[in-house]
Amino acid sequence: MNNAKPNERRKRFTVRHSGHRSGPRKQNSHAANQLQKQAPAQQPKRREAHRTPIRIIPLGGLNEIGKNMTVFECCNDMFILDCGLAFPDADMPGVDIVLPDFTYVERNADKLRGIIITHGHEDHIGGLAYLLKKVSAPVYGSGMAIGLIKHKLEEHGMLGKVSLNVMEPRKTVKLGCMAVEFIKVNHSIPGAMGMAIHTPAGVLVHTGDFKVDFTPIDGGPIDLARFGELGSRGVLALMTDSTNAERPGYTQSEHKVGESFEKLFTKAGQRRIIIATFSSNIHRVQQIINLAAKNGRKVAVLGRSMINVISTALELGYLEVPKNTIIDIENMNQYPPEQIVLITTGSQGEPMSALTRMAMNDHKKVNITPMDFIIISATPIPGNEKHVTKVVNELLRSGAEVVYEAMYEVHVSGHACQEELKLMMALTRPKYFIPVHGEYKHLIKARNIAIEMGIPQDNIIIGSIGNVIETDGTFMRVVSQVPAGRVLVDGLGVGDVGSIVLRDRKHLAEDGLIIVVVGIEKASNTIVAGPDIISRGFVYVREAEELMVQARQVMCHTLDECSAYELKEWTSLKTKLRDALSDFIYSKTKRSPMILPIIMEI
Amino acid sequence: MNNAKPNERRKRFTVRHSGHRSGPRKQNSHAANQLQKQAPAQQPKRREAHRTPIRIIPLGGLNEIGKNMTVFECCNDMFILDCGLAFPDADMPGVDIVLPDFTYVERNADKLRGIIITHGHEDHIGGLAYLLKKVSAPVYGSGMAIGLIKHKLEEHGMLGKVSLNVMEPRKTVKLGCMAVEFIKVNHSIPGAMGMAIHTPAGVLVHTGDFKVDFTPIDGGPIDLARFGELGSRGVLALMTDSTNAERPGYTQSEHKVGESFEKLFTKAGQRRIIIATFSSNIHRVQQIINLAAKNGRKVAVLGRSMINVISTALELGYLEVPKNTIIDIENMNQYPPEQIVLITTGSQGEPMSALTRMAMNDHKKVNITPMDFIIISATPIPGNEKHVTKVVNELLRSGAEVVYEAMYEVHVSGHACQEELKLMMALTRPKYFIPVHGEYKHLIKARNIAIEMGIPQDNIIIGSIGNVIETDGTFMRVVSQVPAGRVLVDGLGVGDVGSIVLRDRKHLAEDGLIIVVVGIEKASNTIVAGPDIISRGFVYVREAEELMVQARQVMCHTLDECSAYELKEWTSLKTKLRDALSDFIYSKTKRSPMILPIIMEI
Repeated sequence: MNNAKPNERRKRFTVRHSGHRSGPRKQNSHAANQLQKQAPAQQPKRREAHRTPIRIIPLGGLNEIGKNMTVFECCNDMFILDCGLAFPDADMPGVDIVLPDFTYVERNADKLRGIIITHGHEDHIGGLAYLLKKVSAPVYGSGMAIGLIKHKLEEHGMLGKVSLNVMEPRKTVKLGCMAVEFIKVNHSIPGAMGMAIHTPAGVLVHTGDFKVDFTPIDGGPIDLARFGELGSRGVLALMTDSTNAERPGYTQSEHKVGESFEKLFTKAGQRRIIIATFSSNIHRVQQIINLAAKNGRKVAVLGRSMINVISTALELGYLEVPKNTIIDIENMNQYPPEQIVLITTGSQGEPMSALTRMAMNDHKKVNITPMDFIIISATPIPGNEKHVTKVVNELLRSGAEVVYEAMYEVHVSGHACQEELKLMMALTRPKYFIPVHGEYKHLIKARNIAIEMGIPQDNIIIGSIGNVIETDGTFMRVVSQVPAGRVLVDGLGVGDVGSIVLRDRKHLAEDGLIIVVVGIEKASNTIVAGPDIISRGFVYVREAEELMVQARQVMCHTLDECSAYELKEWTSLKTKLRDALSDFIYSKTKRSPMILPIIMEI
Repeated sequence: MNNAKPNERRKRFTVRHSGHRSGPRKQNSHAANQLQKQAPAQQPKRREAHRTPIRIIPLGGLNEIGKNMTVFECCNDMFILDCGLAFPDADMPGVDIVLPDFTYVERNADKLRGIIITHGHEDHIGGLAYLLKKVSAPVYGSGMAIGLIKHKLEEHGMLGKVSLNVMEPRKTVKLGCMAVEFIKVNHSIPGAMGMAIHTPAGVLVHTGDFKVDFTPIDGGPIDLARFGELGSRGVLALMTDSTNAERPGYTQSEHKVGESFEKLFTKAGQRRIIIATFSSNIHRVQQIINLAAKNGRKVAVLGRSMINVISTALELGYLEVPKNTIIDIENMNQYPPEQIVLITTGSQGEPMSALTRMAMNDHKKVNITPMDFIIISATPIPGNEKHVTKVVNELLRSGAEVVYEAMYEVHVSGHACQEELKLMMALTRPKYFIPVHGEYKHLIKARNIAIEMGIPQDNIIIGSIGNVIETDGTFMRVVSQVPAGRVLVDGLGVGDVGSIVLRDRKHLAEDGLIIVVVGIEKASNTIVAGPDIISRGFVYVREAEELMVQARQVMCHTLDECSAYELKEWTSLKTKLRDALSDFIYSKTKRSPMILPIIMEI
């Protein structure tokens, strides 16, 4: 598409960019001062460009899937693009959600002019309530995104305390010396937007999560024309969703799923249809509702998040439902199976979801029978495969038919594949490229695509969270680092579960715990109680009595050998007890439980 | 392929079977006595058949992937087919391996005539050493399987104590009133066998793990002719590997991988090639060695299991290596990168494997650089996706090129897809069908294929482990149940980690632990020490001092409120302390750590 050789290309871009609007002079000189104060210029060349540099600081979403968050900074102004959460990995037991580290934003709260939201998925809005407890700023997003954010703020008791602003496509919000323009993209949720960020240094394009769908369910395809217009006028840097950069070709249209559903509705025949999908995929819900109406079926909805999102979408007009199509779940049993479609959460086999409870015969309102035809309209997210398999097995056991394979095309992705990334690059023709939203392997794939498209490798930055990426239009590079990482939320605790607590949890999980309690009279340095041995998660004690008796003997023996002086030095006494018991247990079992000596002062 | 209507078909089979050899008369009457003693006849019809019934008892491998083990019993004779292990799920922290429950075999050890092994994968031989510590019997398998079993027995210090017997294809071993014939099949390890089990009730065919490979790397394709011959003479029941029953079409030939490798060797150019694959896939190793020799590269081998299996295969002649092709890893650095292929373990991202350590920059002998071209020749087993991704990311970070996608066809499965299952059914034309080796969803898929192939649904058994499936040639049904389940191995402990220990481990992992210690003088019922509060895996105490101080106050307060009588009743006192602390902690944190009150008698 773009066959210019790297060198020619660079030249052309430079020429084009030099004619670009560079913001008012006054701001520029102010910015220069700021710049000198904050990040001393390293190359005199930069000054020659006479452009106010801008800084891009990703705080999440690079080298990971989830918790997307990026800070854009220019002069004394700063705004945030998205503030998402990530779901915990298997190595974070007990953790509910993972947030970006907000330290940098808190320290620069006075600069914050606003928070821009690309779309309403958890990995883009799930951290917002936590951030807004620490800093305040107006929030801008599509009607759907703002609707979902309202729900979140309500849960946190913060509704009414935050300025929420609905933005239409092609509308721009001014944030200090920068301006952010919303551009419609396609994705697996309505109201998804990419952004053109107009800055003194040039225009940055951030796609948000996107795909190219020429036949979407609502509101038309992605605004390719606007991306092209921006490209034709000169784009300084492009930031693209890299989630699907490993996949060749194009992502299929959401319409494809509708076609599959149509066949499956026929196949279901006289049976009740149950469809599990992501609650936020309103387009899919719309297709299901349309088909239900066409086939004379009523639609019931199950699952808290599904009900939340559907009601938000209905309120805002993102979902159109023919009269008398949706029924209350309580009335479902008044209809024969062939007149029902049940839409539910649980497509990822989440343990507490409606579908999982149905599968486990544990749902109050729905009982699975051979008269059920169940469609799982999703692909398991890595890590969830075993959960989904378990649910499928149990549903099958109840005699239902379950459709879950890729072969039926009951799911399409919401993210751009390789050819769509190329299309976006060809339209925006950026000078610099920063792949975002992906693990390292995805970012590298996106980089390789960009190189194929003629962007010089030196103009591509594979960043890490916390990087301060600076550009004034003539260069782009990582100039420094700010605090970044993950903050774990467990219950009400935000950040109080760190690496030490996780290390202990992992140790406890794998080997369990043995406690040794000894009471020592401080005055006389004599043992007046114990040693007692208690274990949890180590062995089933009733069947290992002998081992525990021997362990107690080892402890008695160790204490007997201690001098009066040693009985005074509790820190070293504890170490001694721990080592002796640890050695004994390992020799007998080849296991290393956590050993916790407790000395009580009497 | 078989278009007979179910009813016609059943009739034809019955007629055919009635002419079948049914074992010596004497055994029959003996068997009838046994039968009356052990499983009282439920249908008088059965006696009319004048056949000695046989019993099939799966003890593993049904409704699960792994720990394959089946008992076959006839009259006073019993043999075992395979004795595998399973790897622990995420809900079994700290568990090393999972074994079948051997109770039934131990109780009937006097009947045991032998153990038949289909092939040398862990899920078919990994439990053998544990079983042979409890019962003794000769073991029969291919040279490769027996070679690998020798290694296992050596590790357990049992070599020389067990009779190991190498079986060739089409050879038969007599086990009491039954005889087992080995039949060559294709699979992802050399020396894989299916079995024809000749019994008084008829012939049972068990495929073992199999695929149909017309162009395998060694020893020719699966012995389809023998399966056909058996089918033509009459097969009572077929048991097939259902692992890939969800996949349409045929599994690709192992040769396909060689073709991909050939292209990738060219692509690697001057770089060192590193290939990670399953150690047991000797055919793949053979192809790598052949290509290395052809391309003037030396082969080095890394990873304990890889070295074990390759040396076993070399000894037994399953692997042919041109002279001076394999070099010691110590000498690898004497050659330039373009003259090296390194074969390694770690294709599943196993945390301790050679490839993972290379990726983490933690391997003594191998340092990854941009001069490495790495091929991960495997598909992640469900549950391992995130491990593999982590390894890929880290390898890429070192600048290496990493090939891991399905698009390069660097891996093919070792299990039969749908068309191969149909082929096996068409050849063996069984009266009854029992799908094995798979989760419930796989068994159901295999059943549906069998129904398509004309086997009546009533003649198909979807079993569970512990089921006693009985047939005398005129019926087949589940008649009773024997003990079956999972036995967890943690370190040296076999079976001492059960559901209570796992429940505690899970609780400790998710919420951590708070210990309350109080010293009470028994004589006076007064508190003489504590309460002290200790926590692990709950919060980072240094940052939650106030919470811990408050928790101690709650405990003091609770103890203060106790009457002298209450201080005597330690069980209820513990409950009181636990409830008070639990409520307090939950109100403050919305978490529920394990609370462990310990009362010391002074």
